Formats: sequence, C-alpha cells, structure tokens
Amino acid sequence: MMNDPRAEILRQAAQLFAQKGYVESSLSEVARSLNYSKGAIYNYFSSKQEIYDAIIIFTLTGLNDASAAAVKREDTPAEQLKQFMVAHARFLADNYDCFVTMLVGFSGMANTGLKDDALALRDAHEGLLRRIIADGVADGSFRAVGAAMTGRAVLSLLSWMVRWFKPGGDKSAEDVALEYHDLLVRGLVA
Amino acid sequence: MMNDPRAEILRQAAQLFAQKGYVESSLSEVARSLNYSKGAIYNYFSSKQEIYDAIIIFTLTGLNDASAAAVKREDTPAEQLKQFMVAHARFLADNYDCFVTMLVGFSGMANTGLKDDALALRDAHEGLLRRIIADGVADGSFRAVGAAMTGRAVLSLLSWMVRWFKPGGDKSAEDVALEYHDLLVRGLVA
Repeated sequence: MMNDPRAEILRQAAQLFAQKGYVESSLSEVARSLNYSKGAIYNYFSSKQEIYDAIIIFTLTGLNDASAAAVKREDTPAEQLKQFMVAHARFLADNYDCFVTMLVGFSGMANTGLKDDALALRDAHEGLLRRIIADGVADGSFRAVGAAMTGRAVLSLLSWMVRWFKPGGDKSAEDVALEYHDLLVRGLVA
Repeated sequence: MMNDPRAEILRQAAQLFAQKGYVESSLSEVARSLNYSKGAIYNYFSSKQEIYDAIIIFTLTGLNDASAAAVKREDTPAEQLKQFMVAHARFLADNYDCFVTMLVGFSGMANTGLKDDALALRDAHEGLLRRIIADGVADGSFRAVGAAMTGRAVLSLLSWMVRWFKPGGDKSAEDVALEYHDLLVRGLVA
C-alpha cells in the first residue's frame, strides 16, 4: 500500500473514469490497476459512487484552496484576477483526470449532503471571483461590468480547457491563462 | 409517424441521452417515447450508436449553417463577429439536448468516417471565426490578437453555455452572446 491510499484510489479512479467513462468503469479495475485487492479498496470506500463523489469534493476543495491562496498574495483586484486565473488553470492541468470526471457527471453525485457541499464549494470559488471583479470596478481598475456575467465568462474560458487542453503540451496552462487574461482585460478594440 | 421521422428520432434520442446519459439509454425507450415500434426505428437507424453519430453530425452541420448564414449578411468583421456569436448561442439554445449529448461524448463516435466529418465541420466553424478575427485585425477593427487563441476564447464562452444556460429562462441566448461580445470587444480596462 502507498503512503496515502485514499488519495491514490481517487487518482487512479479519476484516470479510469476519464478514459472509459464512469458507467463503464468498475471498482475491480481500480483495484487491479493499483495492485490492491477489492477488499483493500473497501477499507476506504464502500462503492464506485462513493469514490466518484469523493473525487468531486477533492477537486473543488483543491480548486478553492489554490485560487484563494493565489489571491491572498496580491493586493490589487487587477493582479488578483490574473493570479486567480493562473491558479485555476494550473490546478486544472495538475488534476486533469479529475476535471474530466467532473465534467461528465457533476450532477451525478448520489450523496445529497456531499452534493450540497460541492455546490457550496463551487459557489465559494465563483464568489471570490465576483468579489475581485466588483472590487476592481469599485477602485476604478475595471469599467462598470457586471460581476456575475464577467465571472461567468472567466470561468467559462477556464472550464472549457478540459475539452481541449492537454497537460504536457507546447503551451502550459499558465500561458493559456495569461493569454486569456490579457484578452479579457484589454479586449479586442484596436 | 410524423412528417420527418428521422429528425423526430434524433430529437427524442437527444432528449433521452441528455437526461439519462448515452450508456443508460436504450433504443426501446426512444421508440416508446415516440409511440413507434422498435422495428419502425430500424427503418431509419440500425443501432443506438448510429443515432448518436447522426445527432453529432446534425448538430455540427446546423451550427455551421447558422453561423455561416449570419456572417454572410454582414459586411464588416466587427459586425460578423457579433452575429457569429449570436447565431451560435441561438442554435445552442434551440438544440440544447443535442449539445448536451455532444458534450458528454464527442469522442465516442463509432463510425470513423462520420467522426472525420464531425471534425471537419468543427474545424469549418472555428475556421470561419478565425477568418473573421484575422480580417478584423487586418482592417484595424481589432488590435493584433492571435486568431487561434481568440477564436478559442470565443468558442469557450459559447460552448460552456451548455453547462449553465437553461433555454426559456429570464435571459435569452442572444442576450448572453451580446453581453459576452461586449465584454470581449471592450475588455475590462476602465
């Protein structure tokens, strides 16, 4: 067994779900790929669904922590927006399989308590972003855009990366985030 | 049987796939919801997979036609970009279940010939958008942004709508597209 079997199981399961889809993956396959017995998995999770739910919570918690930490290091809303985007993109690249898993079935969480937790985490992440945008409008760094619509645009740019970005390619996730940030801040007008 | 049974089958199947997922939907359910016999379905499609593949081609063909027609009516790249975005968003809202189906399993097409067709359609749509952006840079309407990166940003904004936009709500798809267009063109800088 590895140092943190629970984390290992989540990582391996996310890889399998991302490749084959949730429905077509089995707990036995997760166990086999880790050289665990199925019984060893049951020490940590009682079902495939429980693993799925745990992946979603792990991913959203990590995403929140990463963006909050990045934002805390900056003083101005303008710089906070940039670092929020970079941190989100980097976390997505580092946990790519988890984001693929989440994309395919966020609404598929079985544990309603955990589903509420997931929605709260998602709202906290979006809430931090809206706060940054509203602060930037208030201090004159940004023009008077709506925080909800603009936050949604930022998260759309970052979230769609799971559909085309491949970690380890020519361009890093941070590069993509910085390009999007520049486009968003400066706009298209000549 | 309805006027265009083939289109009806696709529409009904897309609704089912969007609600239950592809793997968990059956051809029998599609037939039942249309009051068709399973045999009647087989007059048009030989398998669930064939219906899935046809939904993807139908959706991408319609998206291409809609954006190309909207762009053709405009003379300037600046106005073409706006109408491209509005047409894409409107087509997504009008064919919401098809886009949900496509989101979940674009890579899941079985017929490799049709998969090549799908990729060609996707590239044509993105190619038109890149052409508009490059033209706008060339005629001085837009600053010197990269057409590939900017096109990707535009398509990310529009594509992610399938994850949050609900047709028939307070805000129309066209409204969303116009807000995104304004944000993208004018940027955030005050």
